[in-house]
Amino acid sequence: MHPRPDRRKPSQLRPLRCQWNVAPNALASVLLSCGDTQVICAVSVEENVPRWMKAQNVSGGWLTAEYSMLPYSTADRKPRDITKGKIDGRSQEIQRLIGRSLRAVLDLEKLGPRTLWVDCDVLQADGGTRTTSITGAYLALRMAVERLMLSGRLTDNPLTTSIAAVSVGIVSGRVLADLCYLEDKNAAVDMNVVMTGGGRFVEVQASGEEASYTPDELHAMLAAASSALKKTARFQTQAWARRPAQR
Amino acid sequence: MHPRPDRRKPSQLRPLRCQWNVAPNALASVLLSCGDTQVICAVSVEENVPRWMKAQNVSGGWLTAEYSMLPYSTADRKPRDITKGKIDGRSQEIQRLIGRSLRAVLDLEKLGPRTLWVDCDVLQADGGTRTTSITGAYLALRMAVERLMLSGRLTDNPLTTSIAAVSVGIVSGRVLADLCYLEDKNAAVDMNVVMTGGGRFVEVQASGEEASYTPDELHAMLAAASSALKKTARFQTQAWARRPAQR
Amino acid sequence: MHPRPDRRKPSQLRPLRCQWNVAPNALASVLLSCGDTQVICAVSVEENVPRWMKAQNVSGGWLTAEYSMLPYSTADRKPRDITKGKIDGRSQEIQRLIGRSLRAVLDLEKLGPRTLWVDCDVLQADGGTRTTSITGAYLALRMAVERLMLSGRLTDNPLTTSIAAVSVGIVSGRVLADLCYLEDKNAAVDMNVVMTGGGRFVEVQASGEEASYTPDELHAMLAAASSALKKTARFQTQAWARRPAQR
Amino acid sequence: MHPRPDRRKPSQLRPLRCQWNVAPNALASVLLSCGDTQVICAVSVEENVPRWMKAQNVSGGWLTAEYSMLPYSTADRKPRDITKGKIDGRSQEIQRLIGRSLRAVLDLEKLGPRTLWVDCDVLQADGGTRTTSITGAYLALRMAVERLMLSGRLTDNPLTTSIAAVSVGIVSGRVLADLCYLEDKNAAVDMNVVMTGGGRFVEVQASGEEASYTPDELHAMLAAASSALKKTARFQTQAWARRPAQR
Amino acid sequence: MHPRPDRRKPSQLRPLRCQWNVAPNALASVLLSCGDTQVICAVSVEENVPRWMKAQNVSGGWLTAEYSMLPYSTADRKPRDITKGKIDGRSQEIQRLIGRSLRAVLDLEKLGPRTLWVDCDVLQADGGTRTTSITGAYLALRMAVERLMLSGRLTDNPLTTSIAAVSVGIVSGRVLADLCYLEDKNAAVDMNVVMTGGGRFVEVQASGEEASYTPDELHAMLAAASSALKKTARFQTQAWARRPAQR
Amino acid sequence: MHPRPDRRKPSQLRPLRCQWNVAPNALASVLLSCGDTQVICAVSVEENVPRWMKAQNVSGGWLTAEYSMLPYSTADRKPRDITKGKIDGRSQEIQRLIGRSLRAVLDLEKLGPRTLWVDCDVLQADGGTRTTSITGAYLALRMAVERLMLSGRLTDNPLTTSIAAVSVGIVSGRVLADLCYLEDKNAAVDMNVVMTGGGRFVEVQASGEEASYTPDELHAMLAAASSALKKTARFQTQAWARRPAQR
Repeated sequence: MHPRPDRRKPSQLRPLRCQWNVAPNALASVLLSCGDTQVICAVSVEENVPRWMKAQNVSGGWLTAEYSMLPYSTADRKPRDITKGKIDGRSQEIQRLIGRSLRAVLDLEKLGPRTLWVDCDVLQADGGTRTTSITGAYLALRMAVERLMLSGRLTDNPLTTSIAAVSVGIVSGRVLADLCYLEDKNAAVDMNVVMTGGGRFVEVQASGEEASYTPDELHAMLAAASSALKKTARFQTQAWARRPAQR
Repeated sequence: MHPRPDRRKPSQLRPLRCQWNVAPNALASVLLSCGDTQVICAVSVEENVPRWMKAQNVSGGWLTAEYSMLPYSTADRKPRDITKGKIDGRSQEIQRLIGRSLRAVLDLEKLGPRTLWVDCDVLQADGGTRTTSITGAYLALRMAVERLMLSGRLTDNPLTTSIAAVSVGIVSGRVLADLCYLEDKNAAVDMNVVMTGGGRFVEVQASGEEASYTPDELHAMLAAASSALKKTARFQTQAWARRPAQR
Repeated sequence: MHPRPDRRKPSQLRPLRCQWNVAPNALASVLLSCGDTQVICAVSVEENVPRWMKAQNVSGGWLTAEYSMLPYSTADRKPRDITKGKIDGRSQEIQRLIGRSLRAVLDLEKLGPRTLWVDCDVLQADGGTRTTSITGAYLALRMAVERLMLSGRLTDNPLTTSIAAVSVGIVSGRVLADLCYLEDKNAAVDMNVVMTGGGRFVEVQASGEEASYTPDELHAMLAAASSALKKTARFQTQAWARRPAQR
Repeated sequence: MHPRPDRRKPSQLRPLRCQWNVAPNALASVLLSCGDTQVICAVSVEENVPRWMKAQNVSGGWLTAEYSMLPYSTADRKPRDITKGKIDGRSQEIQRLIGRSLRAVLDLEKLGPRTLWVDCDVLQADGGTRTTSITGAYLALRMAVERLMLSGRLTDNPLTTSIAAVSVGIVSGRVLADLCYLEDKNAAVDMNVVMTGGGRFVEVQASGEEASYTPDELHAMLAAASSALKKTARFQTQAWARRPAQR
Repeated sequence: MHPRPDRRKPSQLRPLRCQWNVAPNALASVLLSCGDTQVICAVSVEENVPRWMKAQNVSGGWLTAEYSMLPYSTADRKPRDITKGKIDGRSQEIQRLIGRSLRAVLDLEKLGPRTLWVDCDVLQADGGTRTTSITGAYLALRMAVERLMLSGRLTDNPLTTSIAAVSVGIVSGRVLADLCYLEDKNAAVDMNVVMTGGGRFVEVQASGEEASYTPDELHAMLAAASSALKKTARFQTQAWARRPAQR
Repeated sequence: MHPRPDRRKPSQLRPLRCQWNVAPNALASVLLSCGDTQVICAVSVEENVPRWMKAQNVSGGWLTAEYSMLPYSTADRKPRDITKGKIDGRSQEIQRLIGRSLRAVLDLEKLGPRTLWVDCDVLQADGGTRTTSITGAYLALRMAVERLMLSGRLTDNPLTTSIAAVSVGIVSGRVLADLCYLEDKNAAVDMNVVMTGGGRFVEVQASGEEASYTPDELHAMLAAASSALKKTARFQTQAWARRPAQR
């Protein structure tokens, strides 16, 4: 049986690292690294809600996520969206996933009539950019909320729990956690799971890549994801504890 | 406990109906109805492959899906994509799902250097448009393949098995199969499952709508989907048997 | 002298057929077939007027038409407008013609401050898609108006008369009515005429296709169109009489 | 009966004036004035044919027309197309008309594998900009052809005859020729006619503006247009005779 | 030492010529020629200010410039911006320069809550189109202001001084003023200077074209530009004196 | 006299800091900080040249720069270009400046038939983002060239000298070097200077911000810039010496 490119065990995650405040003009920001994958996650606030909420008279606030790969994040330079004139389908799908996931743990009523913008820009891509984005965005979001509360703009914490994400896949018949790019490319099935700190699912997406999978394989992947996400939640708790004192 | 809007039992599907050859200029087409949801699924063939396949020297063929809601398919008229200048994020996500699902049961090598275009245009929307698209697109694809074989353009059947899709959700705490629009809007969790005729998964997507769900709920939904998709596969077999004689 | 592809006499029209309510979420809809040409014509209503009417303080309502060929309506698949990023010049010209023609028989003051959207989507194209669109759109419009009146949203019928359209051309020196695609392609002159039920012209457009024509030829074509449109108006009267009872 | 704004008789045309070579870098150019309407008509040549001609293996050349109103040509400044991101439907319709009309008198085989670009930019708009464009574009085209022949790039004259255009309308019940903007705005019917120097029709377009018209009215307008276009053809002959000696 | 293409001395400018009111529907317009370079400069007024001024509560008015090369202004036809779907980087840079320069001599408070639109369309390009645009736009702007004052819409002259522009460059080691296209193409350094009638700088832009230049060369170019712009200011004074009587 | 916001002397620069290899998938990258302004500068290589070079048969290679402000780089979140559908005029101007400046010190013949892509993404904006981009891009470019030479893809160093940039302005009558955002906003004149390590100018751009300036003021600003850029060149030499060993 082939070892993993970086010799990890099937259930072993890549090292996670969180660097706080990399973009000081944002309300909150982190650079989250998961092995060689690095994503800048930044949260900004706008004292306004999207037009459709006003039109439909929806109360509360909103959270919008945007995801983008910096052109130099991949081995071959990736042209910017603006060069091609449209956002790429994959990016759009990912930013919808990030936004939906974060809104699942955010009480939009308590947020009040404002919009949180979550930007995830991939600085280096080596597989798992969407899951790393979610795990990092949660940390930035938590700090953003803390800052809004410290400054008195929020009185009631709108975050209901924590959230993290991991990828799991079947490569050469084995269930592997936290796929790097090379593994992802060769996976027969690719699953992304978003879970709360309390072990509830927020999103499960499992796609056969020109392949299909059995119920047993699905359950094995779900188990691997749950187990992995316990570790990731632990990492988030530690990273939060080590955050810099608020400015 | 509230009854379902159309008095169905939780596991009961809406009636499926297949009208063949609604778009006679297509290589193959069906109008698939699932209750009040109606989708035109048409397959065209182009004796060419996408540019990226040539650039990367990938052999075999390709299948591309496009999904669109006709402006009059919804209660309030939905402006066309071209009016807004860009394809809607949701549509893009759906057409990527349809394409990926169909490619999972298509041997692209056997297809040869050609592209199959699968167009799904929603004529009437009442929930489940993406799953109805997949179930119908499979039928149109099967007929398209039969025609390519009858005409001698294909000698080896590239379809490896059948495929169908269903939505399942949790509404007011109950697991319901095949949600209509009203149920979909009120669902706490919304799951779409694509499965082969042989009972293997192709896609599982389960999203908490500003909510999360337990592993037990996930398993209950997966069971409901599997059971529903057996009936859908049976419907497909019957519809295929009743197809018109080939022109 | 060559017979017509379907053996029709020069002045003979293709069979017209009207299927009502094909898009049940629309305010009114028909699938109009003229031989092998099939167009979905649907009318929606929006309780608002275009921005330019408000800006210029124009009273009354408006009617906007949109025309599109479904990708599988032609023998070779036609890419969607959104793929090319812009609406095609021919489609734009046709939708302007449809809108102008219908507005000619609609009292915009009586319509009140609302917009009627008329969508014409070609399901199968075999020549005459713009004239079939107009003939079908009138029927859908008439039903839409009836429904607005039955529901009390309109009290005064804003339709002043009926309208229908036909194409006429000169092919190999002969004046032919209601050209199919093959004839249209070979026509030296191509004319489209829109006429009221009372025999008044609304639009006459006659283009030499890299050719020119004499006043005599123009008059012969006008006579053929007038005669054809009497039959079309008769068809519309019958189709209207056979409409389903209003829901 | 109200006199016309500039006291013209119903059949009287506005004075035409042709200034040659206003854009010296073009292959040929004129500034054509028709009363207060002024259009720059310029012809350029490109030694290449459109992609679709190559793809479809069509021999010969092509002529493409572009029409645009300069932002300061109207009383209220008209934003440029590029500001709105798309070409205006009316402009697109007009440039298709100009191109089709000119191609009707051009033997594309004799032109050889090259493209003639005809640009019509309206410097001042007072009604009749499309007809003035055609009348002027013919003169520029004729000079362009002469230059291509003098320089030896063409040996056989591809122009088969001359072409000119005029607008005619029904205003307050009277048939008027060559409408100015104010008349055009108030016309119940608006007709544009393109005719060869030999009196053959190339294009007839007659639109009821929220109105319809009788066959008699149509014939009266056609007669007025024919008579007007004899004068315009005479003007073109004189303008051509007075062209500057070729450089 | 090679003579200049038109035998001018290094410091000699091309003849300037100003034709007034070429676009009579504009508030004011000129066709400014500088040798073979010809630019239509037109000023329109809109009784409104840009959205950002309202949003940011900025008082006073605004001036926006747009610059475009007509497709037939160059030896090879230049496709329109709308064809490529976006404004070209060079044009955007030039129109920002024109706007900034004119705003430097305009008291926006005195202008009041209105927008002046300055359109510069190049009819013939032979180098120096941006400087010719500025020199001509000033004249059109001055006439526009005079007309607004004569009509009572402005009571206080918002123009603080005059403005003109010239290009200077180093070609084959020599400092030349007012480069034509051929010289511009061969220049090692290309400088554009905008200066008030009183000899103050508004803009200095000096770019090495894949080259660099010494402080001494910079000073020599600045001296040449200052000296040239004295002559241009004199020309403007004379052109203004010879303007037609106001309508 | 007011002190500067950070108490600097008029000629004092903000501290510069260079972090190497921040984007490991790029050929070379730095994060350059100038006070609170931080820019990621990354160089990628593509073994191909732009289409226009092939079409015009230009030999050698090319360098293209792209500049973008990350949405969270400013105090108020700046929407992405793709959201607005077009690149901002200011960004386009800046990326043209960066590209032109770097090409001035690059021998494109020696580069060979390849394109260097220079991406400058602003992580934090506090004035001087374009000059910081140029100073940082030079360092990344130098490392990129070294890597191409070490790997044998280049044999002859195409860099002819070093390059750096600084902003200078007149604020409240004083000439200040290296303006921060607050100073930049209040500057009457704003100048950007790009200079080689040998003290030759590459670009000088001095704009009056709704103001003008005297020749004496211009000379004072040029002197301040020259003096500042000697220090910046020194910083670059030190940063280069401290670069990490090549991988």
